[in-house]
Amino acid sequence: MNELRRDPITSRWIITGLDKIPNPGDFKVDPITKKKDGCPFCHGNEAQTPPEIIAHRKSGPPNSPGWTVRVVPNKFPALKIEGNLDKQGLGVFDMMNGIGAHEVIIDGPDHLRDMSDLTHAETEEVIWAYLARSIDLRRDPRFKYILIFKNYGKAAGASLEHPHSQLIALPIVPKRVLEEIEGAEEYDGYKERCVFCDIMRQEKEEKDRIVVEDECFLAFCPFVSRFPYEVWIIPKKHMSDFTTLSRDHVQCLARAMRDSLAKIKAVLGDPPYNFIIHTSPINGHERDDYHWHIEIMPKLAKIAGFEWGSGFYINPVPPHIAARNLHEAKIDTNGNT
Amino acid sequence: MNELRRDPITSRWIITGLDKIPNPGDFKVDPITKKKDGCPFCHGNEAQTPPEIIAHRKSGPPNSPGWTVRVVPNKFPALKIEGNLDKQGLGVFDMMNGIGAHEVIIDGPDHLRDMSDLTHAETEEVIWAYLARSIDLRRDPRFKYILIFKNYGKAAGASLEHPHSQLIALPIVPKRVLEEIEGAEEYDGYKERCVFCDIMRQEKEEKDRIVVEDECFLAFCPFVSRFPYEVWIIPKKHMSDFTTLSRDHVQCLARAMRDSLAKIKAVLGDPPYNFIIHTSPINGHERDDYHWHIEIMPKLAKIAGFEWGSGFYINPVPPHIAARNLHEAKIDTNGNT
Repeated sequence: MNELRRDPITSRWIITGLDKIPNPGDFKVDPITKKKDGCPFCHGNEAQTPPEIIAHRKSGPPNSPGWTVRVVPNKFPALKIEGNLDKQGLGVFDMMNGIGAHEVIIDGPDHLRDMSDLTHAETEEVIWAYLARSIDLRRDPRFKYILIFKNYGKAAGASLEHPHSQLIALPIVPKRVLEEIEGAEEYDGYKERCVFCDIMRQEKEEKDRIVVEDECFLAFCPFVSRFPYEVWIIPKKHMSDFTTLSRDHVQCLARAMRDSLAKIKAVLGDPPYNFIIHTSPINGHERDDYHWHIEIMPKLAKIAGFEWGSGFYINPVPPHIAARNLHEAKIDTNGNT
Repeated sequence: MNELRRDPITSRWIITGLDKIPNPGDFKVDPITKKKDGCPFCHGNEAQTPPEIIAHRKSGPPNSPGWTVRVVPNKFPALKIEGNLDKQGLGVFDMMNGIGAHEVIIDGPDHLRDMSDLTHAETEEVIWAYLARSIDLRRDPRFKYILIFKNYGKAAGASLEHPHSQLIALPIVPKRVLEEIEGAEEYDGYKERCVFCDIMRQEKEEKDRIVVEDECFLAFCPFVSRFPYEVWIIPKKHMSDFTTLSRDHVQCLARAMRDSLAKIKAVLGDPPYNFIIHTSPINGHERDDYHWHIEIMPKLAKIAGFEWGSGFYINPVPPHIAARNLHEAKIDTNGNT
C-alpha cells in the first residue's frame, strides 16, 4: 500500500509508492541535445550576449575569451532593472510594474560540460559568481528577494542548452519562500527549534536517505520528496542567508553540489533537472530563523491534474531507495583534488 | 514592460508579458497520439478493465458494450479503498496509510473523441457520472475531499490516451484547496463578500476576458492567469458544492465546458491540457463561503526553476489576448442542439 507523508515545513503531502517501485532505467529521459553551433554562451561568442556584468578571467578585457564563469543580463528578461516600482490596484487585483533583475550565470565556457561534469574548483567559481551577484543586487532597496536557480534540459524549461544558471531579483518575497518561513515560524512556536535543523538531525540519525555528507553540508533525499530522486543540500550549521558563506563553506558546497549532480547523472543518465536556492529575504525582510538550502529536482515525471488540483505529489520512488542508489553510485573524481 | 499581478484568492503572483506576445501558432504542441489498438477503455474491450462501478448504457449487462460513459476503478490506484485510516508520527514527520479512492471516468466509448469533440448531451452524461460518483463516495466518513480532474495528452500526464477523467477521494483536505479557502476567508473578513463572486463581477464588468457565458456559468481567462490560455468556469450564483448542481445547471455546465475546450482546440490545435474541479471539502469540513469552479490549464509552457522556487508564474500571453482569441474562435456545434 502507498503511504501519505506530510512535510513539517509547508504541510505539503506526498504519496509515495512502496510496491512496484520503478528502477532508474524505467524513466524515459529525453536526451539533452548538445549542438554547439551558434551558441551565444560558448567561448569565443562573447559578442552575442549583452555586455557582461562580471566574469572570472585571468587576463584580457571584458567580453573577450579566456573566462571561466561569466554573468550577463538575460536578453529576454522576465523583469527589468530600469524604472521605479509603481504599485496600483484594479478592482480586486493588485498590480506592479515588472521591476527586477534577471541575469544569466554561464557556468563555464564549454558547451558540453554541465555542473555535474565540472571539477570541484570550477563549481566553486560558479558559487562565487552566485554570491557576488547576490551581494551586489541586495544593495538595491527595491528588491526583497534574490532567487538563484538552474534549468537543465528542455523538459526542465531551459531554452538554451549551454549549461547556465539564472538569478532573478524580485520586489516581492515569493509565496513558496513565505510558506517555508511561516511553517518554520509555526514549528518554532511550539517546539522552539528550527524545523530544518530538526529534519537534518533526523536524517542524520536514520542515515538511510543520505546522498553525500561532508563537514559543512548534508545532501539527502528528503523523507517527503515530491519528485523521484529529489535531493536537498543543507548547511549543517543553522544559517539563514546563503551570502554569509565563508570560503571553507564554498569549498564544501561545491563538493556537495557537483557530487550530488554527478551521482544523479550516473544513476539516471543525464536527466533534465531544476535546482533552486532558497535563502532568507533581504532589505528589512531578513529572517534569522530561516535555514537556507538547495532543492534539486530531476524532471522524471509529469505534473498532472491531481498535483495541480491538490498540491499533493505522487512520487513512485521512496526516497530511501533513491538515496541508496545515489549514495552507491560511483562518480569520476578526476581533476577534483 | 512586463506586469506583476496578484491573485486576491491565494496571493499568488504572475508576471505577464505586454510586448512580444506569442501567437497561438508559436506554441509547439506535441500532437496527441491516437492509437486505438489494444486500448482497454475502447468500446468492446470492457473485459480489460477492472469491473465497472457505474456506467450509462441503454440495455445490456454490466461490463458489456453499448455504454456511453463508464466508471471503473483505477488499475494502478494512487490510494486504495480497503483498510482503516492509520495515522502515525515518525520524528518530525506525519504519515498515514494510503487510503482513498481512485476511479477513472471513461468520457465516451470512442478513442478519437475528446470532450472537446463531444456533443453537449454527451458532455452532460460525463458530468452526471462525476456527480453520481462524488455523491456516493462522500458517504464514506474516511474522506474529506473529492477531487475530479482530467489529464489529456502525455505532456499533461495522461498515461492512457483514450479520453478519460479521474476522481480521487482523499482523507485530507488538499493544500491547494485550503489555500483558496483561507484566502476567501481572509477576504470575507475585511470585505464581507465572496472573493470569487467579486472576481466574477469584475470580469463581467470589464468584459474583455470572457470566453463564453450563459445563464448559469461564466468561462473566462482570469486576470491572474498562471498559464497561457488558462480558462476558469464558475457558477454565476454563489455555490460552494459542485454536487448541488440542478439538472438545468448540468446542461449549462456541459455547454460551458465543452465549448471552452472546443475553443481551446480551435485556437491552439489540440494541445495537451489538465482541468480540475475545485469544490468544498466534505464530511464536517464543508465551507459554505467557498465557491466551486473549474480550472482548465493547457500545457503550452514548461514549469521551470523560477516557478518551482518562487511560486510565481510567467505567462507570456496576457489573458485578454487569450480570451479574445478564444471568444472569436468558431466552433462546430453540429449535433449539439
